[in-house]
Amino acid sequence: MTEQTHDDTSCHADTHGYHENKARYLARMRRIEGQARGIHRMIDEDAYCIDILTQVSAVTSALENVSLALLEDHLEHCVTNAAREGGVVAEEKVAEAMAAIRRLVKS
Amino acid sequence: MTEQTHDDTSCHADTHGYHENKARYLARMRRIEGQARGIHRMIDEDAYCIDILTQVSAVTSALENVSLALLEDHLEHCVTNAAREGGVVAEEKVAEAMAAIRRLVKS
Amino acid sequence: MTEQTHDDTSCHADTHGYHENKARYLARMRRIEGQARGIHRMIDEDAYCIDILTQVSAVTSALENVSLALLEDHLEHCVTNAAREGGVVAEEKVAEAMAAIRRLVKS
Amino acid sequence: MTEQTHDDTSCHADTHGYHENKARYLARMRRIEGQARGIHRMIDEDAYCIDILTQVSAVTSALENVSLALLEDHLEHCVTNAAREGGVVAEEKVAEAMAAIRRLVKS
Repeated sequence: MTEQTHDDTSCHADTHGYHENKARYLARMRRIEGQARGIHRMIDEDAYCIDILTQVSAVTSALENVSLALLEDHLEHCVTNAAREGGVVAEEKVAEAMAAIRRLVKS
Repeated sequence: MTEQTHDDTSCHADTHGYHENKARYLARMRRIEGQARGIHRMIDEDAYCIDILTQVSAVTSALENVSLALLEDHLEHCVTNAAREGGVVAEEKVAEAMAAIRRLVKS
Repeated sequence: MTEQTHDDTSCHADTHGYHENKARYLARMRRIEGQARGIHRMIDEDAYCIDILTQVSAVTSALENVSLALLEDHLEHCVTNAAREGGVVAEEKVAEAMAAIRRLVKS
Repeated sequence: MTEQTHDDTSCHADTHGYHENKARYLARMRRIEGQARGIHRMIDEDAYCIDILTQVSAVTSALENVSLALLEDHLEHCVTNAAREGGVVAEEKVAEAMAAIRRLVKS
């Protein structure tokens, strides 16, 4: 698990877009972790393939919605702030956001 | 978490397509559970938005690959066995597999 | 554009899964072609970016639905017939269908 | 086909993000239109299902890449310009871009 790889001075911990909704993101990830454990148990108890596939699709959708919410917070705060700064900071922020959007679309 | 909703006599626990690879599926789901916990910790420690998004995409891809592997096992065993039985059993098995494929494609 | 790359004796032209719905598939592809032409015109007439993106998503969904319908026909006919033949023919048909499903999920 | 539905004064035709690459977008859409026609012909000539599915996935990927390129141009120009204006204009631009990203991810 790669921790923070960006030394992002223009975007401090308390100004990350998701900061306001941190408690809700933590609760959502706790739920997703529980769903993953539930799928582990279904496989362990020889559940029917299609039932397991249904649960895996539910977790994938939940993760996708976490990504979309994080992305919206990021665009509203970090990318918008960087755009006001202008120059290379703005260009890098948009390029970084696009790389994240590509991963989201292609995964 | 809905457990097994199908009373699938034609597809017993030990003949589920994934039975042979059960240990590997259990290990993969344990890893995914750990990744979800790691994302929870990144949010808790105010990691940078893009780093979190990168990890969420990695977990989504890992889940997608579990789905594709489960689906392949299911087609090779349960759907193929049902096709040999023919009639309504075969039709239902294909319809069920297609519903799972639709969820996978649309999630 | 690669034409038919498979010399598939077990699956003749008139027994392809989609044969019964051929007219509808042709109409759907004609509509998709028209939508692509419409997007070309929007770009040519300097339409607003978001409006173009909306149309591109609509065409992508239409294509995805064509794929899912073709896949269902293929599973119901070609894969089911091969399963009854059994042996290598059945294994190859499932492997081929899974490769198509992977492309569909990952695209 | 809905033409321009937005009366976007802050984003004039010649300042649309994609304007610089207009010729390339037109060429890409012309190619996609041709690919759609090619699929129509494959169906008409009773091509093998899997070969058709392969072509449909290729067109879907091509469309997805057009969407990602349009989105990048839009973020770099229209969204960045609106962020500098600030206020409601900036908020609406981000919300609009997120709606397009959601459609792209979910299609």
